[in-house]
Amino acid sequence: MPKPERPTSALCDHDEAAVRYRGRDLVEELIGKLSFTEVLMLQILGRLPGAPERRMMDAILVTLMEHGLTPSAITTRLVYHSAPEAMQGAVAAGLLAVGSQFVGTMENAALLLREIREDPAGLEPAARRVAESYRAERRAIPGFGHHLHKPDDPRAKRLLELAREEGQAGSQVEALEILGHAVDAAAGRHVTVNATGAIAAILGDMGVPPELMRGFALVSRAAGLVSHVGEERERPSARFIWDLVEGAIPSEGGKRR
Amino acid sequence: MPKPERPTSALCDHDEAAVRYRGRDLVEELIGKLSFTEVLMLQILGRLPGAPERRMMDAILVTLMEHGLTPSAITTRLVYHSAPEAMQGAVAAGLLAVGSQFVGTMENAALLLREIREDPAGLEPAARRVAESYRAERRAIPGFGHHLHKPDDPRAKRLLELAREEGQAGSQVEALEILGHAVDAAAGRHVTVNATGAIAAILGDMGVPPELMRGFALVSRAAGLVSHVGEERERPSARFIWDLVEGAIPSEGGKRR
Amino acid sequence: MPKPERPTSALCDHDEAAVRYRGRDLVEELIGKLSFTEVLMLQILGRLPGAPERRMMDAILVTLMEHGLTPSAITTRLVYHSAPEAMQGAVAAGLLAVGSQFVGTMENAALLLREIREDPAGLEPAARRVAESYRAERRAIPGFGHHLHKPDDPRAKRLLELAREEGQAGSQVEALEILGHAVDAAAGRHVTVNATGAIAAILGDMGVPPELMRGFALVSRAAGLVSHVGEERERPSARFIWDLVEGAIPSEGGKRR
Amino acid sequence: MPKPERPTSALCDHDEAAVRYRGRDLVEELIGKLSFTEVLMLQILGRLPGAPERRMMDAILVTLMEHGLTPSAITTRLVYHSAPEAMQGAVAAGLLAVGSQFVGTMENAALLLREIREDPAGLEPAARRVAESYRAERRAIPGFGHHLHKPDDPRAKRLLELAREEGQAGSQVEALEILGHAVDAAAGRHVTVNATGAIAAILGDMGVPPELMRGFALVSRAAGLVSHVGEERERPSARFIWDLVEGAIPSEGGKRR
Repeated sequence: MPKPERPTSALCDHDEAAVRYRGRDLVEELIGKLSFTEVLMLQILGRLPGAPERRMMDAILVTLMEHGLTPSAITTRLVYHSAPEAMQGAVAAGLLAVGSQFVGTMENAALLLREIREDPAGLEPAARRVAESYRAERRAIPGFGHHLHKPDDPRAKRLLELAREEGQAGSQVEALEILGHAVDAAAGRHVTVNATGAIAAILGDMGVPPELMRGFALVSRAAGLVSHVGEERERPSARFIWDLVEGAIPSEGGKRR
Repeated sequence: MPKPERPTSALCDHDEAAVRYRGRDLVEELIGKLSFTEVLMLQILGRLPGAPERRMMDAILVTLMEHGLTPSAITTRLVYHSAPEAMQGAVAAGLLAVGSQFVGTMENAALLLREIREDPAGLEPAARRVAESYRAERRAIPGFGHHLHKPDDPRAKRLLELAREEGQAGSQVEALEILGHAVDAAAGRHVTVNATGAIAAILGDMGVPPELMRGFALVSRAAGLVSHVGEERERPSARFIWDLVEGAIPSEGGKRR
Repeated sequence: MPKPERPTSALCDHDEAAVRYRGRDLVEELIGKLSFTEVLMLQILGRLPGAPERRMMDAILVTLMEHGLTPSAITTRLVYHSAPEAMQGAVAAGLLAVGSQFVGTMENAALLLREIREDPAGLEPAARRVAESYRAERRAIPGFGHHLHKPDDPRAKRLLELAREEGQAGSQVEALEILGHAVDAAAGRHVTVNATGAIAAILGDMGVPPELMRGFALVSRAAGLVSHVGEERERPSARFIWDLVEGAIPSEGGKRR
Repeated sequence: MPKPERPTSALCDHDEAAVRYRGRDLVEELIGKLSFTEVLMLQILGRLPGAPERRMMDAILVTLMEHGLTPSAITTRLVYHSAPEAMQGAVAAGLLAVGSQFVGTMENAALLLREIREDPAGLEPAARRVAESYRAERRAIPGFGHHLHKPDDPRAKRLLELAREEGQAGSQVEALEILGHAVDAAAGRHVTVNATGAIAAILGDMGVPPELMRGFALVSRAAGLVSHVGEERERPSARFIWDLVEGAIPSEGGKRR
C-alpha cells in the first residue's frame, strides 16, 4: 500500500497570540462581527455568505431544529436520565438517530434531483420517468410525502417561497418543482414536497454536496437536543417513558423459545 | 416507588397544518424572521434575546467552534474514515470528547464563581481564599491558564470586552475579574483567564445554569466537526493519522506480561 | 507544559505473519484454545484466570447482559430504526445509557466498600456509621435496594453464593455482608443487596479498580443490545414506541411561554 | 399510515422474584452454568449452541477483539482523556469506528457468498465470473487481501481450519474456498482470504444474517476497547497522540481561502 501523502488542514491555525479560522483572525475579524451561521458557512462551505444566503441558511437550520418527541429527542432524554454526568453522551446518542430514514432522506432527494438534471432527455421527461417508475414500484419518492403534514408540509412551502424571495432558488429548486408536477400527475392527486425535499434542493443550489447535507441537520438538531436536556432537567420524563414502554410491550418469557 | 407524574413538553407541538416552537408558529413567526442563534436561545433558554444578547451568544458560539486538530476533530476524522456510511457517527464520536477536561471546565469555573458570589465574607476575601487554597494545593483553577495562549488568551479578553460593550457583563463577570486579580496576586505573576472561564461567566450572567453550559459547546463544536468531515472528504487525513500513531507508539508484544 | 513521554502499549502487536495479544500468539495460543471470557480477562486484567475465576466472570457478564426494555434497549431500537445503515450507531447509543445512574452504581458501591475497609475503626463500626449516616440523610446506599426485586434481588444472592462456591469471595465480599447487616439494622427491615452491589464486591476481590468496573457492563450489555437489534429487525417496535411516547406526553404549544 | 401493531419481545422478562432470558431463569439456569459466549448466542441467535459451535464462536470473538492502535482504539483513548467522567462515551466512540470500511466488510463478503451460492450457473462458474469482474474493474473483493498480512492472513487460515475441525464448515465456507481459487486464478498470484472473509463465511454457516454480523465485532471490540481504557489509565497516550497529530499536519491558516 502506498504511504498516504501528508495532509494539510485549512480550517484553523493558532499560535500563542491568535487563532485563525480559514485564515481569518478569530478575535479581530470574527468575534462580535459575524453570526454563528456566517462562521458555520465559512467553515463548512469555505466562503462567507451574503445576507440573502445567510438568511436562507438560518431558515434551514431553524426548520431542522425540532419536531417534538422524535426518536432522537426520546433517546437524548433516556440517556441523560441514565448518565447525567455526561450530557455530551445524551446529545451524541440523539444525533445517532439523525440517519438515513428521516432527516437523511435529504441525500436521496438530492441525488434524485441530480439524476433528473443530468438526464439527456431533459428535465420534464426525466421527471415523468422517475415519478412513474417509483409509482409503478410503489416506492416513496425521496423528498415527497409526510405522514403528518397533509396536503402540504407548511415548512417546505415557506422555505421554497423564501428561496425565491432571497434569490436562492436555482436549478435544483426548479428541478424539484418540475418533479413535483410529475409526481402529482403520476399519483393522480397532490403529494406534498416535504421539508427535507425542499432543503435538499436549496442546499444543492448553495453548492452543498449531497453527502454533506446531513451535517446541517446535525448542527441544528444538536441545539434542539440541548433544549430537551434542559427541559428534562426541570420536568423529567425519562422514568415515565421507560415505564410506559416496558408496560406496553409484553414479553414472552413464559414460553421457551 | 411512586408512579412518575405525567410529564409535558413546552418545546414543540405540531398538527397537520403547523409546527410550533414554544408556542410560536414556525412558518409564520420563525422561518425567515429569526436567526438560528435567536431560535436556539428561544428553545434552550425559553426566551427570545434582544440584539445585544444575541450578538454575545453569536460571539460565544463562534469562539467554541474550532481549535484545529483537537481530540474531537481527530476522532471525527478517524470515525468518518472507518464508517463513511454514517456521518452522524463521526460527529457524535467527536462530540463525546467535549467532556470534563477541556470545554467542560466551563461548569467548574461557573460553580467556582457561584461559590465566591455566595460567600458571606464578600467577593474579594472569597476570591483571595479560593486563589490561595488552589495555589497551596497546586491545583489548576478552573477558567484560568492555557497551555498555548500566554500571557493572555486573546479569545477571553475579546469576549469579556464585548460583554461590556453589549451590556452583558453582570455579577458573574465581575466575580471573574476579582478572582483574576486574586489569582495573579497568589501566583506572583499574571495568569490568563481562558476562553472557557470567560464564557462561563458570561453565560452565567445570561442565566444559563452551570450544568447546561456544555450544551452550547456541543452545538458549536458540531458545526466545527461537520467542517472537518467536509475537509476529510476532500483531503483525507485519517489513514495518515493511523499510520503515524501506530508507528510512534511501540508495542511490547515480544515479552510475556 | 512538559512534553508527554512516549507511551507504549502491551495489548497487541502484529507483523506480517502474526498477531500477538499481550505477547501471546493469537493463532497459536488463543484461537481455539481459550474462551472469549478468558481472553477478555487477559486483555483487561493483564492475566489469565483459572477456571473458578473464569466461571465467576462468566456469571457476572451473563447477569449484566439483559434486563428487558431498559433505557439502553429502547435507545438502541429507536436509533436502529432511524439509521439502519449503521448498527454500530444503535449499539453505541444504547451503551451511552450505561452511566452513573443504573449500572454505574457499581463504582460507588466499590468506593463505599473501600471506605469501610480502610476505616481504622474496624469493619463493623465503619459499616454501622455508613449505614446510619445514609439513613439519617435519607440517601440510597450504593449497591442496596431495587425498585423491582424485593425482598431480595435473586441475582445478587446467586452471585454471592457462587463467589463462595468458587473461592472468589474475599475481603470485599465480606465487607459487603457486614455492611448488609448494618443496613438492615439501621432500616429496621431487610434491604436487599442488589446485583450491582454484589458485582462491585466480587470484581473488587478480583482486583478490578472501581473506575474500570463499568467496562464489564459495557461488554456484556453490547451483546444484549445486539440481540435487541436482531429482534428489532424481525419484529419492529420503534415506530410503536415513538407513537406511544408522543401520544402520552402532551405538548403545551398552544400557550406562549 | 396504519397504526403499527403492538410488538412483543422474547429476549427478557422479569418479575419481583426472577429474571428470564428467552424463557430461561437467569438464576436457576444460566448463572454459574453457562458461559458468556453461550448466553450471547442464546440471546442473539435464539438457540443454545453445542460445544463445537460454542468453541467456534469463542474463536471468532477472540479474533475480533484486538488489532493494536486502530482508529477505534485511538478514538477511545482520545475520548477517554477528554471525558474520563464517562468511560461509556470512550467505548461508544470507539465502536462508532466499527463501520463499513474495515470490520464491516464482513457484510459485503457474506452478500457476495450468497450471490455465488444462488447463481444458477453453479458455484465454480459463479466464482470465476465474480473474480474476473472485480479484477476487470480493479476493485477489492470483500473478504480478500490485507494490507499487512501477506501472503496469508494467519487468522483466516486458522479460523477456517478450526471450522473444519469443529464440524462448523458448511456451504458458505465451501463457497469461500471456491471463490479463493477463482480469485487466485484471476489475479495470477495468491491473494489471502482475510479474517473478515473467513468470519463472514463461518457466521453465515451458523445462520447469522449478513446484516447482523457486525454485531459480533461490536461485542468483541467493546472488550478490546475497555482494555485500551484500562491501559490509558495507567500509561496515558492521548496527550502524546494529540501533539503528534497536531504537529504533523500543517495548517494553511496564513493564506486566505
